Amino acid sequence: MTHTPDITRPPQHLAAGLAAIGSATASAELSRLGIRDSHICGPVSFTPGKCIAGPALTLQFMPIREDLYGADEYADPEKQLHRHVLYHAQPGDVVVVDARADMRSGVFGEMMLTYFAGRGGVGVVIDGCIRDLPEAKKLNLGLWLRGATPNFHTQTGIFPFAVNVPIACGGRLVMPGDIIVADDDGAVVVPATLAPALLAKASVHHEWEEFSRLRLSEGGDLRRYYPLSDAARPEYDAWKAARAK
Amino acid sequence: MTHTPDITRPPQHLAAGLAAIGSATASAELSRLGIRDSHICGPVSFTPGKCIAGPALTLQFMPIREDLYGADEYADPEKQLHRHVLYHAQPGDVVVVDARADMRSGVFGEMMLTYFAGRGGVGVVIDGCIRDLPEAKKLNLGLWLRGATPNFHTQTGIFPFAVNVPIACGGRLVMPGDIIVADDDGAVVVPATLAPALLAKASVHHEWEEFSRLRLSEGGDLRRYYPLSDAARPEYDAWKAARAK
Amino acid sequence: MTHTPDITRPPQHLAAGLAAIGSATASAELSRLGIRDSHICGPVSFTPGKCIAGPALTLQFMPIREDLYGADEYADPEKQLHRHVLYHAQPGDVVVVDARADMRSGVFGEMMLTYFAGRGGVGVVIDGCIRDLPEAKKLNLGLWLRGATPNFHTQTGIFPFAVNVPIACGGRLVMPGDIIVADDDGAVVVPATLAPALLAKASVHHEWEEFSRLRLSEGGDLRRYYPLSDAARPEYDAWKAARAK
Amino acid sequence: MTHTPDITRPPQHLAAGLAAIGSATASAELSRLGIRDSHICGPVSFTPGKCIAGPALTLQFMPIREDLYGADEYADPEKQLHRHVLYHAQPGDVVVVDARADMRSGVFGEMMLTYFAGRGGVGVVIDGCIRDLPEAKKLNLGLWLRGATPNFHTQTGIFPFAVNVPIACGGRLVMPGDIIVADDDGAVVVPATLAPALLAKASVHHEWEEFSRLRLSEGGDLRRYYPLSDAARPEYDAWKAARAK
Amino acid sequence: MTHTPDITRPPQHLAAGLAAIGSATASAELSRLGIRDSHICGPVSFTPGKCIAGPALTLQFMPIREDLYGADEYADPEKQLHRHVLYHAQPGDVVVVDARADMRSGVFGEMMLTYFAGRGGVGVVIDGCIRDLPEAKKLNLGLWLRGATPNFHTQTGIFPFAVNVPIACGGRLVMPGDIIVADDDGAVVVPATLAPALLAKASVHHEWEEFSRLRLSEGGDLRRYYPLSDAARPEYDAWKAARAK
Amino acid sequence: MTHTPDITRPPQHLAAGLAAIGSATASAELSRLGIRDSHICGPVSFTPGKCIAGPALTLQFMPIREDLYGADEYADPEKQLHRHVLYHAQPGDVVVVDARADMRSGVFGEMMLTYFAGRGGVGVVIDGCIRDLPEAKKLNLGLWLRGATPNFHTQTGIFPFAVNVPIACGGRLVMPGDIIVADDDGAVVVPATLAPALLAKASVHHEWEEFSRLRLSEGGDLRRYYPLSDAARPEYDAWKAARAK
Repeated sequence: MTHTPDITRPPQHLAAGLAAIGSATASAELSRLGIRDSHICGPVSFTPGKCIAGPALTLQFMPIREDLYGADEYADPEKQLHRHVLYHAQPGDVVVVDARADMRSGVFGEMMLTYFAGRGGVGVVIDGCIRDLPEAKKLNLGLWLRGATPNFHTQTGIFPFAVNVPIACGGRLVMPGDIIVADDDGAVVVPATLAPALLAKASVHHEWEEFSRLRLSEGGDLRRYYPLSDAARPEYDAWKAARAK
Repeated sequence: MTHTPDITRPPQHLAAGLAAIGSATASAELSRLGIRDSHICGPVSFTPGKCIAGPALTLQFMPIREDLYGADEYADPEKQLHRHVLYHAQPGDVVVVDARADMRSGVFGEMMLTYFAGRGGVGVVIDGCIRDLPEAKKLNLGLWLRGATPNFHTQTGIFPFAVNVPIACGGRLVMPGDIIVADDDGAVVVPATLAPALLAKASVHHEWEEFSRLRLSEGGDLRRYYPLSDAARPEYDAWKAARAK
Repeated sequence: MTHTPDITRPPQHLAAGLAAIGSATASAELSRLGIRDSHICGPVSFTPGKCIAGPALTLQFMPIREDLYGADEYADPEKQLHRHVLYHAQPGDVVVVDARADMRSGVFGEMMLTYFAGRGGVGVVIDGCIRDLPEAKKLNLGLWLRGATPNFHTQTGIFPFAVNVPIACGGRLVMPGDIIVADDDGAVVVPATLAPALLAKASVHHEWEEFSRLRLSEGGDLRRYYPLSDAARPEYDAWKAARAK
Repeated sequence: MTHTPDITRPPQHLAAGLAAIGSATASAELSRLGIRDSHICGPVSFTPGKCIAGPALTLQFMPIREDLYGADEYADPEKQLHRHVLYHAQPGDVVVVDARADMRSGVFGEMMLTYFAGRGGVGVVIDGCIRDLPEAKKLNLGLWLRGATPNFHTQTGIFPFAVNVPIACGGRLVMPGDIIVADDDGAVVVPATLAPALLAKASVHHEWEEFSRLRLSEGGDLRRYYPLSDAARPEYDAWKAARAK
Repeated sequence: MTHTPDITRPPQHLAAGLAAIGSATASAELSRLGIRDSHICGPVSFTPGKCIAGPALTLQFMPIREDLYGADEYADPEKQLHRHVLYHAQPGDVVVVDARADMRSGVFGEMMLTYFAGRGGVGVVIDGCIRDLPEAKKLNLGLWLRGATPNFHTQTGIFPFAVNVPIACGGRLVMPGDIIVADDDGAVVVPATLAPALLAKASVHHEWEEFSRLRLSEGGDLRRYYPLSDAARPEYDAWKAARAK
Repeated sequence: MTHTPDITRPPQHLAAGLAAIGSATASAELSRLGIRDSHICGPVSFTPGKCIAGPALTLQFMPIREDLYGADEYADPEKQLHRHVLYHAQPGDVVVVDARADMRSGVFGEMMLTYFAGRGGVGVVIDGCIRDLPEAKKLNLGLWLRGATPNFHTQTGIFPFAVNVPIACGGRLVMPGDIIVADDDGAVVVPATLAPALLAKASVHHEWEEFSRLRLSEGGDLRRYYPLSDAARPEYDAWKAARAK
């Protein structure tokens, strides 16, 4: 029988906090913490408006080799590792797949994704494709993909090789249990150990941003309002006071 | 005067049947019939929700060569082969174009596509681009493309060279008269001779799929419900009976 | 203090006229005026339905070099050249950026784009990415991009190097003050000196096009209606007369 | 039994003349005759120093399709079209192959190429690979290739589909019987009908080039010697006179 | 202290046998044994004429992540995994590296390769680059690479992550202990378990090949001599007899 | 008349020193000085064994635009900017060209390169191609290129636009007057201001390297000899003493 390891999940408040700040802030603050580039580059959002964060279950595909994988898709489902990664799903989890940028293999189809959503999974990040895209979009999942294909997962050049191991996805190294933050700008990998520091940094709010945005949208001077200049501070204080009434 | 051959169309019920099963099932069953990869990889749906099937009229572009093609677009329209492929259009037809993955040539514009739709054409699959995209989307056509461009079809590097000949499109060989099945997952080429066998295989319904999908969406166990296990069969039978009332 | 040059803007009626004819007509007529390919190939519309034209402010990125650019993003905002190009913005302007096709650098974020829209800017064409895509789409701007990324503009491999200089964007040379025409088919660069001739050519209307489009949509013969044949002219005249009543 | 057409060969003196002028002059003069780009871009010389010209036998590969090509390599050699193109070989011929830029298919191996060389073939231009590269280099053939592979011609994704038909190779359209000129700079396709005009143009010799080259190599001024200036003409005449003694 | 596993080496006669047959025969026979494509596609020979075979030591690089790899090259050499894979070297071994097709990282330099050659290593296959190329070529090693770079192994985007684990290299899955066969046509991965069957198949010699090659080189008919036809067999027998004298 | 600026050349001993240390050491030491990646990635050596260093004259190509460049090659040579960059050549200079990775444009031909060599130029680094490759290789120049083509410099898609301005070449920013170091590993750009510090760092010799290389080539232990361990130091001292006799 096939056994695959589970992951160690970081405390839930970390994912919740990261979902609130979004991928752009996460990437910028990680940059200041020493992680030059945390963007999983390649997979793009197929579910506009979705913003999620959660621990990474990982699935690694490898180039197909007939002496190691020869069976057809339905021979013994229990041997299919793309099922096993989903068996570990808990509410809030994100599945991240190194599908080797392959555009001719549909890593998951409708039934697999329905199961994952039913188990509380929140998102899927694949350096490759799914199939049954229209049905997948109706599930309550965020999808970051390179595309869709009618082909099934082992039909052409790759096959699932390992579950919850370190993988590369979109040019980034993802460790099982890292936190993925993803929205319309893309998906970011947050090392679990850096999440607290990242949240602390990101929680330093610039209260004046809403004011500045308003002024800029009215044609205000970028030098005056962003970042907020000393010259504009009295105006900001007045605006804030007026608003508080 | 320019003459181009018509195609031999397969019986109409085949296209109708294939449209009902969709591209993912078509690709998987063809795989079991020995066709490793039938996905026309590259062109993607620009008309989400559209699902079509029909015989392929084919158009082949070649790299431009000034000694063989020098005229400007409107000199003698009757010599333009991209018009000729449309002259053969019958209701239900699909035009498939090898545009050599060129992103700087708009194979068809609004007027050509309006004519094709007016003749009953159902879809266009191009390993390249069209122009007048917004107008094209309003026609009742499915569009599978690499993109759009403002350039006309012979403006830069390619020109139409042959009609209803074997072509390569998206890494697949398409014979005139093959059946194209296309939806949001992509376009699949079904050899006309394999269509009956494919339909026979695909018509073996898994009646329990609807039940399984429901259970999975409720958090049910993948091992129990997909494929339907013997253990779950009484539950399924009960569900089916309750539903039949 | 950093100084960058402004551009010389062509007469405003030229941009207005070009916006009315759209990118496909602009590209085709420029082709007849000797400009083989004016399509900025790569950036695609992220704001479907938007059609704009305006003079080009240009921004050039270069591969990052730590001896020439070492500061973090917020050290001295006034040194950031991606701000300076926006300082020149006037109503109707378009910003065109050579971001070297980089997918890991967000050239502008929400605040920069809000400022640009507030100053009356109408569109942004980037051979690369922005960040804060969802917020950017809500501004009244047309966006032609390769994609989105959570990364900020100097986070990985490039940095802003020059403002309002000649740049390459999407395989085209763009001079500061050229007129950009962009819609769902893509963005076209119109040399300012050719704009009058282009408008003159494009204003020769084919009054029969509306009639022909109608007939084609009803299944009419392409040879008869497009271009309008002599044989169809009486039918067209009758249609026009009936319509005029 | 398989039949394939032969080609119409241009007069032999054309190929001889073109071999003498080389690919760079051929490409430049064709450009002045209206052929913008005649360079078969992609295949590079694997036989440095070889310079050949001859009529093109053409071979077209297509994406493999198991319903149209299922046999293994040795089942019935007479059905293998890559053999048939060689059956047409006459002394001085060049084989040009559209192998679809495939790096995983060896179009010809040692035995095929030995046969072709034995029949008097002078060169092979392939938008793809051969196998048995070391043995192939020992034959008296010019080889322009993308690379080498141990795989045989139908082992992975393509198969030979047609012989002596128009093909695309390296982004150029090649008609059967066109003249190929190839050397260390690459391979050029010369339309048979343009060969006489090209030769006439190229035969206008610049007698002073040898003199200019000498002076430039000694540190002479480019403006004075290339092209030869009026100021330098007396010096050239003196050099020529001294040399004639 | 860092520990990495060694590999299980197949019997030495297998590598010796495979080196004798070469990569082209290995790939073709593996194809007939069910391995569709065994060519490590991408790395090419930088040591023309070298033909080697031996068991694979494997090294996996991953995208760099500053929280997991921050030290400079010389901080603690014993932690550098690219050294560890070499520590396992035994006479006849081949090092295979998944360097992620990176062209900006030199996996090994002169000193590492000198050590490997000194230990009896016979070849290196890298889906990426080395540095110190001229010195490396002077060692008695076969080199299959994508190129060379002056950069050291962790200077830009990747770092060594695991030793003697399954890796992908050039689109192929390589298991530690597989046998690599490599020559001027490229590198092939032979699953250790298939090596005996492959050798058995490849040892069925076609004694007539030498005769056929000779006849083909003299202009003989391909149909008569390759494969050897019944009609040519008496001629072959006579040639063989004459030769035996 | 066309005027272009000359460059400011760094002191000559810097280039001499850098040529002696080579590209690999230059890149590694620059990395330690804060320049993450100085490798001009793309152009490779076409003159194996050549190792050069010298100040960069720069030439920038842009996408061709017929309203800005319409003349044929020989119309008025003095307007051709690819000539002008060579007019500035002094002994020891290197020409670096941003040819936009174009494979269809030969930036320089034999006569231009003969002139450059005649003036004492030592090398050419082009993110693109030259023509007349065989003749160019015979000149006493180092050549780092992407390839060769028979096409001339303005024949297809690009044209020379500026001389001795900052350019991008192979993903690196090159300032006029930077020092280029190039050998078989590739070309490296050394900012002129960092050259002294780089030379100082690189001159710290590891005298034991020759000893270590010898021991490693004899099968010595990497841990003992590289870097030289304390345990091996007495052995090294003895070797050095024996050698000194």
